[in-house]
Amino acid sequence: MKNLKIPEATVSRLSVYSRFLEEVEKRGITSISSGEIAEGIGGTPAQVRKDLAYFGEFGTRGVGYNVHSLNEQMVKILGLGKTWKVILVGAGNLGSALSQYKGFRDRGFDIIAVFDNDLKKVGLMLNGIAIYPISQIADFINEHDVRIAIIAVPAAYAQDVADTMVDTKIQGILNFAPVVLTVPEEIETRNVDLAVNLEVLSFNIESNQRATN
Amino acid sequence: MKNLKIPEATVSRLSVYSRFLEEVEKRGITSISSGEIAEGIGGTPAQVRKDLAYFGEFGTRGVGYNVHSLNEQMVKILGLGKTWKVILVGAGNLGSALSQYKGFRDRGFDIIAVFDNDLKKVGLMLNGIAIYPISQIADFINEHDVRIAIIAVPAAYAQDVADTMVDTKIQGILNFAPVVLTVPEEIETRNVDLAVNLEVLSFNIESNQRATN
Repeated sequence: MKNLKIPEATVSRLSVYSRFLEEVEKRGITSISSGEIAEGIGGTPAQVRKDLAYFGEFGTRGVGYNVHSLNEQMVKILGLGKTWKVILVGAGNLGSALSQYKGFRDRGFDIIAVFDNDLKKVGLMLNGIAIYPISQIADFINEHDVRIAIIAVPAAYAQDVADTMVDTKIQGILNFAPVVLTVPEEIETRNVDLAVNLEVLSFNIESNQRATN
Repeated sequence: MKNLKIPEATVSRLSVYSRFLEEVEKRGITSISSGEIAEGIGGTPAQVRKDLAYFGEFGTRGVGYNVHSLNEQMVKILGLGKTWKVILVGAGNLGSALSQYKGFRDRGFDIIAVFDNDLKKVGLMLNGIAIYPISQIADFINEHDVRIAIIAVPAAYAQDVADTMVDTKIQGILNFAPVVLTVPEEIETRNVDLAVNLEVLSFNIESNQRATN
């Protein structure tokens, strides 16, 4: 791997390429071209080649990339190929949807506990995962070596939830609440902003119309 | 606005800046520096200045950007400042979470109908929005001038749902199903891939550890 800072947009696409390559490998295909990858994920061959060049990987002309070894490298770069213990905070609709999301477990993200501040939910199961009270978050993280937390609570509660994770073994927070969390810099945070996606879509629709007018 | 192709990552950040500026303006603040924007959204001042330069906007040294006019430009670029009629397909947990998401309506995305293939749900309301059968999607879109559809159904059904929207008035699809949709190129599609977000997070955690070792 070349010692370059990989842009986040490229990392995002590596994740998509990698899951596509897993599917391809299951079908028994051993080599693939940048064009086939691009078609499979809805991108352009030039973008695929540029992304793969970040880690010094070049296909062989007329043969393409080796599916298995290409995916192996991506999995390693993405920090996958091992199991990440994950907790989910928030047992509402969004939490429930996330707890069922097959794509997490398939890639090694194992949600081992759910936390909620609604004591009526505590002690119940959410899609097979036990629900604990918010007050037990820090102890649970440290006892079970949890590294990643998913926050799916209303915006007003998200910072309080994040505060309970400071000085624990948590290394990363995936935050679905529409608020910027303040945490020490050793905790990596990533916000999933659902409105951004609709706004990029409306931008693209408007751009198409400007282009055709 | 300069006539440059704006990268999607920049468009995503414009959406975040714009919502931050709305909050700032509500607090009665009239001018703001790139450093303050960066702090508010968790970015760097250099990135903010670079993003704003795409549309020829420069702050005044020592004064900063005018909050109102800066946001006004962003809203226009993003295709906001008007109401987009939106339908939501899928009344499961994810659909239910999305139907309640305040961030959509606040920015002009108005979910006016929900569609589901479960006839037990048809005729009921999902968070105040009526649920219709999937078979009525195309007629509803054309009768109500719907421009955007959100797909929140299981992967196996997503393509069938998208197919019902071809040759209707739909211009854009926001797809939460973990599958790449095949639609005519005049329909703009955007996939929200929840696994990508966890994988970028694990990449960043691993990068931090490589950096400190």
